[in-house]
Amino acid sequence: MARDERGVTAQSEDFSNWYNEVVVKAALVDRGPAKGTMVIRPYGYRIWELLQAELDRRIKQTGHENAYFPLLIPQSYLEREADHVEGFSPELAVVTHAGGKELEEPLVVRPTSETIIGEMMAKWISSHRDLPLLLNQWANVVRWEMRPRMFLRTTEFLWQEGHTAHADEAEARAEMELALGIYETVARELAAMPVVPGEKTPGERFAGAVETITIESMMRDGKALQAGTSHYMGTNFARAFGIRYAASDGRDAFCHTTSWGMSTRMLGGVVMTHGDDRGLVLPPRLAPHQVVIVPIMRGDAAAAVVAAADELAGKLRSAGVRVYVDDQDQTPGWKFNEWEMRGVPVRVELGPRDLAAGTAVMVRRLGEEGKRSVDLATLPDLMPGILDDFQAYLLARATAFREENTSAVDDWAAFEAAVATGWALALHCGKPQCEIDIKALTAATPRCVPLTGDAESGQCVRCDAPASYGKRVIFSRAY
Amino acid sequence: MARDERGVTAQSEDFSNWYNEVVVKAALVDRGPAKGTMVIRPYGYRIWELLQAELDRRIKQTGHENAYFPLLIPQSYLEREADHVEGFSPELAVVTHAGGKELEEPLVVRPTSETIIGEMMAKWISSHRDLPLLLNQWANVVRWEMRPRMFLRTTEFLWQEGHTAHADEAEARAEMELALGIYETVARELAAMPVVPGEKTPGERFAGAVETITIESMMRDGKALQAGTSHYMGTNFARAFGIRYAASDGRDAFCHTTSWGMSTRMLGGVVMTHGDDRGLVLPPRLAPHQVVIVPIMRGDAAAAVVAAADELAGKLRSAGVRVYVDDQDQTPGWKFNEWEMRGVPVRVELGPRDLAAGTAVMVRRLGEEGKRSVDLATLPDLMPGILDDFQAYLLARATAFREENTSAVDDWAAFEAAVATGWALALHCGKPQCEIDIKALTAATPRCVPLTGDAESGQCVRCDAPASYGKRVIFSRAY
Repeated sequence: MARDERGVTAQSEDFSNWYNEVVVKAALVDRGPAKGTMVIRPYGYRIWELLQAELDRRIKQTGHENAYFPLLIPQSYLEREADHVEGFSPELAVVTHAGGKELEEPLVVRPTSETIIGEMMAKWISSHRDLPLLLNQWANVVRWEMRPRMFLRTTEFLWQEGHTAHADEAEARAEMELALGIYETVARELAAMPVVPGEKTPGERFAGAVETITIESMMRDGKALQAGTSHYMGTNFARAFGIRYAASDGRDAFCHTTSWGMSTRMLGGVVMTHGDDRGLVLPPRLAPHQVVIVPIMRGDAAAAVVAAADELAGKLRSAGVRVYVDDQDQTPGWKFNEWEMRGVPVRVELGPRDLAAGTAVMVRRLGEEGKRSVDLATLPDLMPGILDDFQAYLLARATAFREENTSAVDDWAAFEAAVATGWALALHCGKPQCEIDIKALTAATPRCVPLTGDAESGQCVRCDAPASYGKRVIFSRAY
Repeated sequence: MARDERGVTAQSEDFSNWYNEVVVKAALVDRGPAKGTMVIRPYGYRIWELLQAELDRRIKQTGHENAYFPLLIPQSYLEREADHVEGFSPELAVVTHAGGKELEEPLVVRPTSETIIGEMMAKWISSHRDLPLLLNQWANVVRWEMRPRMFLRTTEFLWQEGHTAHADEAEARAEMELALGIYETVARELAAMPVVPGEKTPGERFAGAVETITIESMMRDGKALQAGTSHYMGTNFARAFGIRYAASDGRDAFCHTTSWGMSTRMLGGVVMTHGDDRGLVLPPRLAPHQVVIVPIMRGDAAAAVVAAADELAGKLRSAGVRVYVDDQDQTPGWKFNEWEMRGVPVRVELGPRDLAAGTAVMVRRLGEEGKRSVDLATLPDLMPGILDDFQAYLLARATAFREENTSAVDDWAAFEAAVATGWALALHCGKPQCEIDIKALTAATPRCVPLTGDAESGQCVRCDAPASYGKRVIFSRAY
């Protein structure tokens, strides 16, 4: 199939190739030299910074403080919590030599920081007055991936990891939910991803957790992406690391801990939630350039047009809009393709005739409204609203897409059909072996038991045993 | 010598112990489990965030973009630049196993990122139109340290590293100077450190650089701290990694590259520049709490006093001041000691009698003005100016201290005396062996050839050979 060298494979033809090509051609990311590593290029990193700023603001606003813990963790720490070491052992990168010598004890490059933070919490907490301890860390982590995909599964990724300690279960569970609420808000409001919050089934829990809750989002190929998770650890890590406190009555007790994380994987989610065959589509709140102005530079009028474009850009900036004037020496058509590939939400074209008429031509990235002639004088005032509209449009579009591709199913044939293209809402027995069977037959896994699902009972869609959870479970193939 | 359990060793008694105690007792940092690693606690991390925000703003304002490169670098990359590998080999941490297997090629945990960024620059740059390429990265790096000190020399630290590629030497050298200018400004204006910019002698250059420039600052024990460095690499890394471009005349040429870094070491610099026997002294622009309000809660008036403290805090916050109300259940004396240890610039005491009179008691951290009664109504308006004054006072105090402890010396006896307690400004032959001899005799090294020094010629202070550099060199013991 012939296609422009600068274009990408159609989503309908091969979604996986489409993704791999878009993230590179939109200059988000490049392959690193070591297996499965990525280089986050400036355009991709700026998106991360925009997400990070809002996430950091909300984490601080809810009383958490940032700190930083060491990258290298003694291997023995991982072994103190049995489920945790079992879950993470296959993915560890291990430093065996340092400073020209073999180390007495190998050091693990952190895959997550429960163990080292648990060790420090045990040191810092002695009384109920030290609780709750609400910490967050922005960091890189390393998990050796067998089938790496840029942003989605990379050997190294960036994230924040919240770690908290509490006096009792109720407070720790409330914390777990608070963190997931922040993720849900950030995913919806910034990434325009209509995520579904829910509880993980036991087989899909974090290694060492008593309960894991998650936000799951549907990608444009119908698969699910886990976009953030929050865990209640019970006293598992407190027992392993000795995180104890003296209660107000003098009684000695173990803390209840939580952890929660959101990562650069969100960038892959944005790409697969909104992108199309012309490339990336960025929600305005995460777009490095919310508006690109392309001056149409013809003959004598070129200088005047560029000057007008710069003036417009200045006014848009004053209105709080992130804007870029593309006055490179390329044809307008080349630039249109380039900024469509890079997903800029709004393009403004400004030529000599527009300028004479006091207008410009505006087009939104999805082109769903066609090209519109707009008044140059009022555009700076209107643009924030135009961007808000497009942000809302993307969320509504993704929500409609998810709803269209989600089916409540009650028999196996309908289940198989549903998970071939989207999500199935099905009753399930909750047995680990049944989950494994379903995965073997369809590649689908239980993504979550939605928090908001209606109460329902009946038989397992696969094995006819009595259903568990008291409501339907989302099953889907997943990233 | 008897001292309060909550106090610290006097600086005059043992500066090194004073430092080690202050960074822990002020809750900036804690020891990590792996050798030489540190945990940056929330209070310390907040200082880093304040520094980071301003540094990031200035780096972006000058046209640099943030990106992120992998932590793990193939060992062979390090070996491509001969001086670079020689300099860093002894300090490397090496991952030999990952994903449960031995790796075919060991991966080095980045000690700095010239090599991996050089590899990517070679891929991204092809034409003069791609230049200059101006990148920055916020990251952790690992260098195995034999004699770790919190913040100053730790196995892992946080920093930013700028990496740029240019068409010619003049532009690259200008970039190197631009970056050092940013460091000088941030050090002076935020950290109140009166740094001296200068050029490193060949023996003190970065491994692989053609020229290294530095900002050096005097600590309160008279030693020097290198607070930031900027390097012109010539075409050394461009040749090692193939960073080439086609010039406008079609000629193929190597890029000229630079790199520059500032790190969490700055926190150690702040501690040792301003601290005293009662603990930390923070410049207001880097203080997590610029003002602490201690309500004096006696009897019936307690609730009214706390309410008034909260009201004052609200008004101070509206005036842009970072303020904390300490209404913990402790004595005022305990709190005064605590916030002095933590270096809060201004303390406001508010008791029932003050409240009745519409006043409060204010004292600056160094106590150099004594306690002052201030009008509650006007305090919020005045506080930003009070903080600016204290910021300026700290810079002036540190500048005076540096000048008092810096001596221009022309003979060896005077040199030895000068570097025993401070800095010596001396003529030097520039010979590596003479630098080594001086270090062996006095522990002093050439810190830099100040950029602003007056032209001067004569004989080497140590060996009487003709002086090099055309001006005096700063010699000092250093961190």
